[in-house]
Amino acid sequence: MNEVNVINENKFDLQSINKYATIMALGNGYLGLRASHEEYYSEQTRGMYVAGVYNKFTSNDVTEIVNLPDLIGMKIEINGEIFSVLTGEILSYERILNMQKGELTREVVWKNKDGNRFCLKFQRFASKDNLHLLASKITVISLDCDASVKITTGIDAQTSNFGKQHLLEENIRVIDKKVMHAVYRTTESNHTIALATSCNVPSTSDVSFVAKNRQLMAIIKQDLTVDQPFELEKISAIYTSIDKVEEEPAQASIQAVQDNKSTGYDRLLESSAIKWNHFWEQKRVCISSKEEIDQIAIDFSLYHIEIMTPSHDDRFSVGAKGLTGEGYKGHVFWDTEIFIAPFHLFTEPEVARKLLTYRYLHIKEAKDKATKNGYAGALFPWESAYSGMEETPEYAAINILTGTRQKVASAIAEHHIVADIAFAVCQYYENTLDDVFMANEGLELLKETARFWISRTTDENEVLSINDVIGPDEYTEHINNNAYTNYMAYYNVQQALCYMEKYNKIEEDLIKSGNDFLNRLYLPQPNEDKIIPQDDTFLLKPEIDLSIYKQTQGSQAILFDYSRQEVNEMQILKQADVVMLLYLFPNLFDEDVVKKNLHYYEEHTIHDSSLSKAIHAIVAARCGEKENAYRLFQEACLIDLGPNPKSSDEGIHAASLGANWLATIFGFANITVDANKLKINPNLPKNWDKLFFPFHWQGTNLKISITHESITVTKQTDAEVAIEINGELFNLTDQIIASL
Amino acid sequence: MNEVNVINENKFDLQSINKYATIMALGNGYLGLRASHEEYYSEQTRGMYVAGVYNKFTSNDVTEIVNLPDLIGMKIEINGEIFSVLTGEILSYERILNMQKGELTREVVWKNKDGNRFCLKFQRFASKDNLHLLASKITVISLDCDASVKITTGIDAQTSNFGKQHLLEENIRVIDKKVMHAVYRTTESNHTIALATSCNVPSTSDVSFVAKNRQLMAIIKQDLTVDQPFELEKISAIYTSIDKVEEEPAQASIQAVQDNKSTGYDRLLESSAIKWNHFWEQKRVCISSKEEIDQIAIDFSLYHIEIMTPSHDDRFSVGAKGLTGEGYKGHVFWDTEIFIAPFHLFTEPEVARKLLTYRYLHIKEAKDKATKNGYAGALFPWESAYSGMEETPEYAAINILTGTRQKVASAIAEHHIVADIAFAVCQYYENTLDDVFMANEGLELLKETARFWISRTTDENEVLSINDVIGPDEYTEHINNNAYTNYMAYYNVQQALCYMEKYNKIEEDLIKSGNDFLNRLYLPQPNEDKIIPQDDTFLLKPEIDLSIYKQTQGSQAILFDYSRQEVNEMQILKQADVVMLLYLFPNLFDEDVVKKNLHYYEEHTIHDSSLSKAIHAIVAARCGEKENAYRLFQEACLIDLGPNPKSSDEGIHAASLGANWLATIFGFANITVDANKLKINPNLPKNWDKLFFPFHWQGTNLKISITHESITVTKQTDAEVAIEINGELFNLTDQIIASL
Repeated sequence: MNEVNVINENKFDLQSINKYATIMALGNGYLGLRASHEEYYSEQTRGMYVAGVYNKFTSNDVTEIVNLPDLIGMKIEINGEIFSVLTGEILSYERILNMQKGELTREVVWKNKDGNRFCLKFQRFASKDNLHLLASKITVISLDCDASVKITTGIDAQTSNFGKQHLLEENIRVIDKKVMHAVYRTTESNHTIALATSCNVPSTSDVSFVAKNRQLMAIIKQDLTVDQPFELEKISAIYTSIDKVEEEPAQASIQAVQDNKSTGYDRLLESSAIKWNHFWEQKRVCISSKEEIDQIAIDFSLYHIEIMTPSHDDRFSVGAKGLTGEGYKGHVFWDTEIFIAPFHLFTEPEVARKLLTYRYLHIKEAKDKATKNGYAGALFPWESAYSGMEETPEYAAINILTGTRQKVASAIAEHHIVADIAFAVCQYYENTLDDVFMANEGLELLKETARFWISRTTDENEVLSINDVIGPDEYTEHINNNAYTNYMAYYNVQQALCYMEKYNKIEEDLIKSGNDFLNRLYLPQPNEDKIIPQDDTFLLKPEIDLSIYKQTQGSQAILFDYSRQEVNEMQILKQADVVMLLYLFPNLFDEDVVKKNLHYYEEHTIHDSSLSKAIHAIVAARCGEKENAYRLFQEACLIDLGPNPKSSDEGIHAASLGANWLATIFGFANITVDANKLKINPNLPKNWDKLFFPFHWQGTNLKISITHESITVTKQTDAEVAIEINGELFNLTDQIIASL
Repeated sequence: MNEVNVINENKFDLQSINKYATIMALGNGYLGLRASHEEYYSEQTRGMYVAGVYNKFTSNDVTEIVNLPDLIGMKIEINGEIFSVLTGEILSYERILNMQKGELTREVVWKNKDGNRFCLKFQRFASKDNLHLLASKITVISLDCDASVKITTGIDAQTSNFGKQHLLEENIRVIDKKVMHAVYRTTESNHTIALATSCNVPSTSDVSFVAKNRQLMAIIKQDLTVDQPFELEKISAIYTSIDKVEEEPAQASIQAVQDNKSTGYDRLLESSAIKWNHFWEQKRVCISSKEEIDQIAIDFSLYHIEIMTPSHDDRFSVGAKGLTGEGYKGHVFWDTEIFIAPFHLFTEPEVARKLLTYRYLHIKEAKDKATKNGYAGALFPWESAYSGMEETPEYAAINILTGTRQKVASAIAEHHIVADIAFAVCQYYENTLDDVFMANEGLELLKETARFWISRTTDENEVLSINDVIGPDEYTEHINNNAYTNYMAYYNVQQALCYMEKYNKIEEDLIKSGNDFLNRLYLPQPNEDKIIPQDDTFLLKPEIDLSIYKQTQGSQAILFDYSRQEVNEMQILKQADVVMLLYLFPNLFDEDVVKKNLHYYEEHTIHDSSLSKAIHAIVAARCGEKENAYRLFQEACLIDLGPNPKSSDEGIHAASLGANWLATIFGFANITVDANKLKINPNLPKNWDKLFFPFHWQGTNLKISITHESITVTKQTDAEVAIEINGELFNLTDQIIASL
């Protein structure tokens, strides 16, 4: 296996400083750290987040992931001049996110105003070995003359969420004239956050400490001899009161720094890199493509999925921006179950179980929401955070021109998330056959979600409708019988009944009402043109030419020209619900229907949602439209990695990265599961010579290698596995090599 | 009269960015605006403050002056490149604070990375004509090529007090696609702050608006034709719920912008400049000196005294940093009465009366504080803000090395402020003979403060001591019979009795206890060396050589070498209490005692307090030590204007600026008031050829001109004034010309 790709930045560009701060972020699922520079730029949004640590700025505000005090910032003064890439002259600049070992490095050769050159090397990582550890290192070499350097760094609690301050400073200390230590408390959620950090410097350095205005800083002064490197290592630890550790966070953070500070950066990095190496060995997808970006994009996707997922703790889930920014306030959407969890499920199912457990742990809050809204069962919140309660803002941001605020409809009507969670439960069981989970948490989730759907219907002449919903396509609100929602709800109830029977945990009432629901629920059927109507009225609405909006996909430019209400009354899609449905249920309709719907809805879809393209790619690939699929995939890969300098300012597009993996595995490799059987019908793009990936199936770790000529499947465990490859059934005992 | 001086900055230096943001601040007593640049620098602390608008970040926090949303910041992009003085090449740079008309301007010629030159001119002022108005203007000229400019500016509520956010965003709007409008509320004090701003741009500009993350911004795009200036004017208004206006602040702010936006920058500036011109005509001190800095420093002092003083509203007073920064949290100290009020009293007594009214309005809170501390009468808080309650933090900042916090003793023991206020009351009456004020508010203040002192004594063998106090010298805490405090308390009680009798508002009990106090209070007397002991134990304490600490005056460097406790036990002074006493009561001791004490205490004083030097200068001048006095004065003038790049980061040294005026008038002109008679015994420094200043004395505006040869006094009003010049009594009817 080649080394995992690196993400490069070869020149400094102020305009894209926050894009790179996002895409080059570090993390380990416990914490996420934006790739802000050590030195300060006013355009730069610093950010460090810990999974689960949310707070409300005021009681009227929406809870948001808390931007924690900064441990990275350094004021670097060389011969009295503040180092900045904007000043002096940059003779060379390279920043690298090494995804193979989870390290961010930067090397700059800087000529100061006096014409003297200095080489500055920066390194940092968030440990994958000890999730609470963060380490950084700076090396300064004066290339032309003896010089002096002064570095001010420590713990900076002037950071905030764009001006909203969530943290009270509870205590600051310097322990043994070495370890800086600070404790904060969130103002509303009342979590304690403890940080500790220690600077390792040569004994010749002059070190003093200062605390003021929410900053606790070490000031390190050192004379530089020409060509002699000066190294400063900063070993930091973060603990919070919601960690599953016995010690108090304050003590734990100090102890972690005390225990690790003398180990030093390089050895701590090594321990972390071993874990990263293991991750890549177990889970990397290798694409031999004529286009280098394909492998980079899939490495990038997996790297970010890994750092965004709090696999250490089943009380947390994945935010829509992971832990890389404050977009969507760090909230959890259906993105987790439908776009991100499958990667885990098919590589390390325990992680997928934890993500489902997060939902299970909040079934009470979901039931409360259902009750409050007049429904039975569990209505999971559209946006969720630490409490498990609905966190969607009640009103959208003010329309500054009219002064009005629109109610946000998602929490009230975007109910498909209930069935999405149920779908993920079933998908989890199909792959793991984990009866312990399924007979308990799983079934409970299925039953309560089924109860919700049964109560969600309206009886219209003996036919059950699901009215006034929003499907994944948020450009079409408050419609009846959304195809995606109705089919998903049907599946949800069907599976609930099925598993009740399987485990003989019968609730007669539920069986009865569930069967009635299944018998009478309206399921939109293809019309004479074989088009499945997205909802009761969609196909009746006028169409407009969307080509200009497609050119600026992702920007929601249509909303500059039309009001939301006007968009709602036209056949304009943010993402295509029917295509989504076809992806999740590949065998629901015959190929002709699938193709026709893909084309019809693709034409009407702007892809303003980052969740859209890769799903279209999957369905296109399955239809054998390889190049169309490949184009959609490549475009999807550019959502974060593309040239738009602002696209990722507020964080990574978490779901889209999950979708890139889905497109590769379920689109190009075209794996499907039918009646408990694995099927592979590959559709590799012309540009790809080979696709290799691990796939966990019912307790067995498969390695699947696909070329245009053949498929090779190997496994490490004993159990036999039946796999249907291009329609031919194989029984995998040791290795299958199938010609295509 | 020559034009008032300007303060110049001829080159941009990141290290002193906050010093200049302070010293070049604009304001009008209602609001203060730091001279932060339009473009953003991470080292730069922006700040806008309105007198009286304080808030507590948490209930445990000390109230602090609120840093309001920014109206000045502009992101300027030229041909897609973000303008910053750090990037490209600066071909010329000049920033000028024009104190004559209260305008800050800057002109930069910038060569961008493509080698094209642009001239950017920035202007702004806070209106002295309409205190709620702020206007700014930017002119961009492309010197080499056609180009495009994009400016993003509006109302930015991401500002905070070093990370502490005091404001909730209540409403944001764009009115008539023109006026940006935002309303905030302070979290604890519950004040409403309303801002409105309008950008005037050519009709060819493309303007759009965006609101996000506490920012409401206009985005203005304009194509530039070579050599054709593009002008953007921004007319802004600020109103709060504590303004004395009838309208709601929201509506008032919108209306003010609507009313003034078409008037435009230049005409609004003109109206403001007329008021500034009037100020300088009435109040300027003119020094013909061989050293240009002397005139600059006195202009600078008066400019800042004027912008720091909320003379529009007697419910507010002057913070220790004026409205130029967050040092001392914007709190009001004795600085106002003793250092700042005299300038007003002797130029425009109504302003001095308002400052006293501020104290009078909070007599209840002062009485509550006295009661709470077991005393009678009124114990005014050491630090005061909007509420009039004690705002001194209970504990000092944590000692980060020991983890302990020391109790702040000032609120408990620095009681001389009570007598300082009483002194100012008497000084006010002596100059104004304002019986209406004195018989009511004034007498009430004198009586309640007298009552406090009477209750503050300890009877020690029939002698009354005032124990456990802190004098102005804060390096000596918890001492008994502080000379400054005891003499001031004596004067306080004496004057209370005197005015009670004058207005025949006798309280028998108070007369009796007051006389007993006067009879028995211990008043430290000069010892055999003619030294007045600062307190009971001071002269017994060991001395050390302070010369190294004097070299870094103002930095409190001694506290790096000695603990506060150790400093307390040595003859080390931050500022000299006895010298302060000698300044306030020039006739208390004969000249020999004054000289000996000046020298003794000067030797033991580090001048770590910015209040110190100018007072020493006064006493030295009065002793005829002109050159010593002049040296001290010049050093005092450099407290803000000197080369230290960090000295004024947190705001101007308000009291020291007042003291510069005091030194000029009461030191070098050497005006004293004795038995209701004005005396002038000038001691001009050798460098000064002439000193000219206005002086308001008992209803008459005098103009006093002093050279080494003669004094000329003129007046505009009819009343006769008796003036003793160098011991000779003159009766001023029209003009006095006295030879020296």
